[in-house]
Amino acid sequence: MTAACDFSQGAAFVRGEFVPIGQACVPITDWGFLRSDATYDVVTVWEGAFFRLDAHLDRFLASCGRFRLDPGRSRDEITAVLERCVSLARLRRSYVEMIVTRGQPPWGSRDPRQAVNQFYAFAVPYVWIANDEQRQRGLHLRISEVQRIPAASVDPRAKNYHWNDLTMGLLGALDAGADTVVLTDAAGNVVEGPGFNVFAVTGGRLVTPAEGVLEGVTRRTVLEMAHALGIPCEVRALPAAEARAAQEVFLSTSGGGVLPVTRVDGQAVGSGGVGPLTRQLAKTYWDWHADPRYSTPVRYDGD
Amino acid sequence: MTAACDFSQGAAFVRGEFVPIGQACVPITDWGFLRSDATYDVVTVWEGAFFRLDAHLDRFLASCGRFRLDPGRSRDEITAVLERCVSLARLRRSYVEMIVTRGQPPWGSRDPRQAVNQFYAFAVPYVWIANDEQRQRGLHLRISEVQRIPAASVDPRAKNYHWNDLTMGLLGALDAGADTVVLTDAAGNVVEGPGFNVFAVTGGRLVTPAEGVLEGVTRRTVLEMAHALGIPCEVRALPAAEARAAQEVFLSTSGGGVLPVTRVDGQAVGSGGVGPLTRQLAKTYWDWHADPRYSTPVRYDGD
Ligand SMILES: Cc1ncc(COP(=O)(O)O)c(C=O)c1O
Ligand SMILES: Cc1ncc(COP(=O)(O)O)c(C=O)c1O
Repeated sequence: MTAACDFSQGAAFVRGEFVPIGQACVPITDWGFLRSDATYDVVTVWEGAFFRLDAHLDRFLASCGRFRLDPGRSRDEITAVLERCVSLARLRRSYVEMIVTRGQPPWGSRDPRQAVNQFYAFAVPYVWIANDEQRQRGLHLRISEVQRIPAASVDPRAKNYHWNDLTMGLLGALDAGADTVVLTDAAGNVVEGPGFNVFAVTGGRLVTPAEGVLEGVTRRTVLEMAHALGIPCEVRALPAAEARAAQEVFLSTSGGGVLPVTRVDGQAVGSGGVGPLTRQLAKTYWDWHADPRYSTPVRYDGD
Repeated sequence: MTAACDFSQGAAFVRGEFVPIGQACVPITDWGFLRSDATYDVVTVWEGAFFRLDAHLDRFLASCGRFRLDPGRSRDEITAVLERCVSLARLRRSYVEMIVTRGQPPWGSRDPRQAVNQFYAFAVPYVWIANDEQRQRGLHLRISEVQRIPAASVDPRAKNYHWNDLTMGLLGALDAGADTVVLTDAAGNVVEGPGFNVFAVTGGRLVTPAEGVLEGVTRRTVLEMAHALGIPCEVRALPAAEARAAQEVFLSTSGGGVLPVTRVDGQAVGSGGVGPLTRQLAKTYWDWHADPRYSTPVRYDGD
């Protein structure tokens, strides 16, 4: 079934079959598309091993519960699908996405409870949120006036595709010459950006927003690394003015780990270079990838 | 190309080809799915004619502009695609959807400006938001605590698939035994529901929310019908308490026109039956379908 296929660009699991990523598609009538009625998670593979697979599966299943979506398979079955996608694509470094959509209720019904939920997955080459140059010099970040969709509307802890606010904010930031964007809440606090959480260093302490954000696995990793390294942390509201005045700012994301920010709204952060805590945490992030506590080797077929 | 296909369930336009609705799909990597980065519109066909096609095309193109999405074709070309979908499916009463998605930027880029936008369309049998029984007895509506995504986050005037708030509110309403749901804003005003605007009749006047809602074409039709019939209207905030105490409540939608609501949060609206203004407006809505000002006959192939 899969023998004649070219999986070199990535592999996907769609309607119970493994297909090359370029052939993977979602029915236009699936509410996952027509109503963005879906949840997902992204786990990475680095040098042939999943990083914190358990934390991602925990969050994925919690997201499903919050949105009343059923992946229709166990943790082990999900893991087997993800592993097979990575193995088919022969990726040593991969961005691996698992998805549940609502599917479609019977014709004429508008009752989400009557829909048969659908499970999808895919593995593609590792995705960096920042390119090489941006990772070297640090990202130029814009704080947007666009407000992140509030928790009273959509539960931000359940990972979801409601990204129009992030996309419009990103377009504004790119037009203004910045590399990426972070949105604010109604009170003017910084919250999160397209694919990442945010940290600031003020007075030698790490600060990251408590509410209105996805509980990023990388955010959690940063907090755990800080604990291990003896760096004090505060999880609380982060006013935009405080982020602008911080000694260091960085992003946390599965798409690159700890990413330095060296300009905010056109002004240099601290001395304008990548800060010492940011460097230490970025290094520790990659070091932890070799730690068997967090690392699950992928079994590649034919190895 | 299309000769051997069965279009009886509906027809879609995907990647430049017309296919049966059951075969129509969107690439899993299209940001229209992965980021709900898309806009759309729905126009109906009734007894072989589009209803207010111009108003829907105007809104669609305005939505595209707001989200910086390009349908890549003129009004006339869009119309031709829609007409062909309806014609292939031989539908005299149809629900016709046009969609633009962001598509996908080149591999590795996260810049929406580099993506090639994609145009999709489909025609399926007419969709009623309320079934026969509900249209007879009136809908039982629940006012939800879930807040509609605010305009500061996503522009509600640009028709979009950010429906998680509507879906979660709907699930709560269905669980509570209601038929459908209307969401509120942060100030406790009623705004809109899954696929419809809301009207209340208080003191002989129509009231419908001014802000935080899609400018429904049916809402506009109701306001124009009211003007023609000499019924006074107020377009302003509608507090939930006022909606609960109203003499009449109805919904406006392309999925059925003017739909009566006879219970709100378990309490009868007015006398508990379908009110006189609701009846008059519902009748006028269907009468206007025969008016050549609003009606564009579909040219069916082979007629
Ligand atoms: C909105 C949002 N916030 C934060 C994150 C970071 O989460 P994680 O560290 O688990 O990748 C993501 C990841 O994609 C995200 O989409
Ligand atoms: C959120 C929302 N509000 C209102 C409406 C009603 O708009 P229209 O009368 O143009 O169908 C819709 C239609 O689908 C909708 O999705």
